[in-house]
Amino acid sequence: MNMNDMIIKKRDKGVLTEEEIQFFVKGYTEGAVPDYQASALLMAIYFNGMNKEETYALTTAMRDSGDIVDLSAIRGIKVDKHSTGGVGDKTTLIVGPMAAACGVPIAKMSGRGLGFTGGTVDKMESIPGFRTTLEEQEFVNLVNENGISVIGQTGSIAPADKKIYALRDVTGTVENLSLITSSIMSKKLASGSDAIVLDVKCGDGAFMESLEDARRLGELMVEIGNADGKRTAAVITDMDQPLGRAVGNSLEVIEAIETLKGNGPEDITLLSQTLAGIMVYLGGKAASPEEGYRMAGESLQSGAALEKMRLFIKGQGGDPRILDDAGLFPQHQFAVEVTSPGAGFIQKIKARQVGIASQHAGAGRAAKGDAIDMTAGIYLHKKVGDAALEGETLATVFANDEQKAAAAAEELLSAYQIGEEMLQTNKLIKEIIGL
Amino acid sequence: MNMNDMIIKKRDKGVLTEEEIQFFVKGYTEGAVPDYQASALLMAIYFNGMNKEETYALTTAMRDSGDIVDLSAIRGIKVDKHSTGGVGDKTTLIVGPMAAACGVPIAKMSGRGLGFTGGTVDKMESIPGFRTTLEEQEFVNLVNENGISVIGQTGSIAPADKKIYALRDVTGTVENLSLITSSIMSKKLASGSDAIVLDVKCGDGAFMESLEDARRLGELMVEIGNADGKRTAAVITDMDQPLGRAVGNSLEVIEAIETLKGNGPEDITLLSQTLAGIMVYLGGKAASPEEGYRMAGESLQSGAALEKMRLFIKGQGGDPRILDDAGLFPQHQFAVEVTSPGAGFIQKIKARQVGIASQHAGAGRAAKGDAIDMTAGIYLHKKVGDAALEGETLATVFANDEQKAAAAAEELLSAYQIGEEMLQTNKLIKEIIGL
Repeated sequence: MNMNDMIIKKRDKGVLTEEEIQFFVKGYTEGAVPDYQASALLMAIYFNGMNKEETYALTTAMRDSGDIVDLSAIRGIKVDKHSTGGVGDKTTLIVGPMAAACGVPIAKMSGRGLGFTGGTVDKMESIPGFRTTLEEQEFVNLVNENGISVIGQTGSIAPADKKIYALRDVTGTVENLSLITSSIMSKKLASGSDAIVLDVKCGDGAFMESLEDARRLGELMVEIGNADGKRTAAVITDMDQPLGRAVGNSLEVIEAIETLKGNGPEDITLLSQTLAGIMVYLGGKAASPEEGYRMAGESLQSGAALEKMRLFIKGQGGDPRILDDAGLFPQHQFAVEVTSPGAGFIQKIKARQVGIASQHAGAGRAAKGDAIDMTAGIYLHKKVGDAALEGETLATVFANDEQKAAAAAEELLSAYQIGEEMLQTNKLIKEIIGL
Repeated sequence: MNMNDMIIKKRDKGVLTEEEIQFFVKGYTEGAVPDYQASALLMAIYFNGMNKEETYALTTAMRDSGDIVDLSAIRGIKVDKHSTGGVGDKTTLIVGPMAAACGVPIAKMSGRGLGFTGGTVDKMESIPGFRTTLEEQEFVNLVNENGISVIGQTGSIAPADKKIYALRDVTGTVENLSLITSSIMSKKLASGSDAIVLDVKCGDGAFMESLEDARRLGELMVEIGNADGKRTAAVITDMDQPLGRAVGNSLEVIEAIETLKGNGPEDITLLSQTLAGIMVYLGGKAASPEEGYRMAGESLQSGAALEKMRLFIKGQGGDPRILDDAGLFPQHQFAVEVTSPGAGFIQKIKARQVGIASQHAGAGRAAKGDAIDMTAGIYLHKKVGDAALEGETLATVFANDEQKAAAAAEELLSAYQIGEEMLQTNKLIKEIIGL
């Protein structure tokens, strides 16, 4: 097999065989296929796409490039959850305890944040004492005892994805349906779960800006998951403004705890309950997604979900007293208010720019391995549909460096669109695919 | 400037600025831009093309990546000639002496062969004693004294083209109009000539298989040359069978000499006279291309062109007695006849396969720097339109290795298409652009 021939085949709208795709993935991961041929092939795929069979072959070849986690020592149907990446999205920290409270074992591996999107592992590490690296046996024991454990993803899961994604990121080949699908699903299929719930973000600051594109991505990922024998569902959700009000690591954990206490923002609560409900259904603990939704809601009202969160934090060495006293989190030094330049209604809050502002404040990484400030971030007082008077506070930036705070505040102000008309907020849950 | 943004711009059908193109060419030549971003950009260009301004900017940026030859010490209007690469194309060795005999100074740099196409420098080196590397002063002196000198192209001419072409060759990005144009014209614009005549091959074994594509390439190259202040013309010529009957280094020199004596194959004679005629016109020695054509014909009949060939060979250390005795060339050891499998008329002789057969015989290189056998090659007894009886000789392979000869003979047989119908040969000169 010859890479140049394969590039020309895809360039000329040909369909790659499973063997060719495996040759590419294996060769590139091992270093036999050079970067320059890989990037040319990725660009040809960007232009001419891949059909379902090619996408499935690419996904499974990437899955097979590293370890495949064996969760058979954990009792019950393991349901994984994944979000395509949002700003202010702390749902894993809410959905996990909710689903666990309903009897679904949560044995999850999560990632770190990069660029303007945050990562669950970073958020968890803002909890004093919390460990995100555990030995396999400890992980398994925690899930069997407490019903929930979440750890950092190891480097040995789908190394092909790491290498291909890093290349796509610098060669203009990120935004392709099949490449996004293979990147997400290769890791999910290697994670050892029995079923998968996907939160596909749609709108500004998401991979997929239009509903139609988000739907196509959701449908393709559901097909790929099901083809691999894992029941998969996808929820298309709005990302035309950040989720909830808090953006930044410890700020998001605090908001997650408030939500588990029943005091969270409406959007976060609704989305968490919807995702948890589907997980409860796919985990065999409810007869329908609707019943799962009701059970998830009850886990909030009864305090069972909050109790799971306590066990979860305690199990991984975190200080569970933070559940009752947010003052136990390290504190930021500076708070800068962003005020409204005029009177009107909030029309839109560009999620991507809020994420960038949070990164400026110190909460995000520009490059892998960068240190992040756990206490930095943003709190949005005004959200879409709210009225604001001139000079009224729209949002607050928290930071430990005055210059960073000022840069974040400037970026944040430009994320707000204020107009005369009072707009309805977009429907948060747009569609559910695969049920 | 950022390469990833530039790749995305071209991927999304944007028009690159002159500054962006210069940034890419300079950065890639110097190693600051990595191969994988260059290949992704080239693939995006493959799909979305470049307009004339972009192509001109790319060509001049590549031209400026190395030395620009100064031929001002040579008297007269210097006219360069270039072929897009054919099989059996020895016209430079005929056209050069013809145009020189008509008073146009020929100060030319030529390339070596690679793959199934031959190179003028290799052909010249088959002449015993002939030197293709000269000091600049000697080169200038020879042109001023004899009217003609042809040397090998130095590595310092358009190094960006070398690097970009090598990358295109392994990333499926060869066949693009703007990229082909920039590759050819960057070298021509750096070569110090005042005017340029291009022979654009069309058909099997050429970059451009259709007349329409060849015309587009010719037109674009003419525009780019004229934009740089060099009068440029392009002749679109048929490559649906090899040019002449000889393919291989010393075999082609012998055929060139026969043509200069007036005994050459019709197609070679016609093409050479046409190209030389345009050169004579652009060189200011004829009032029209038609007058140039007549003058070029007269240079054959009078023996003046052959005399220029003698001076040319002698000037560069070659043995001029080969003009009178082809037996002075080193001789091949083996000759293998390829015979017709049935009776009929020759419909087509696939030029690319004849070139590959010649390469198999030892006349060509698989990789740069490979040694080649100067005496190996092919002689085509039957050409398109000829009748062949079963068992009659179609062609002869010459080699110094029996196995190579056998491999070449097998390939060569498959190049011949024989049928019942007697076809007209394609018109050799299809179009002339730019006059």
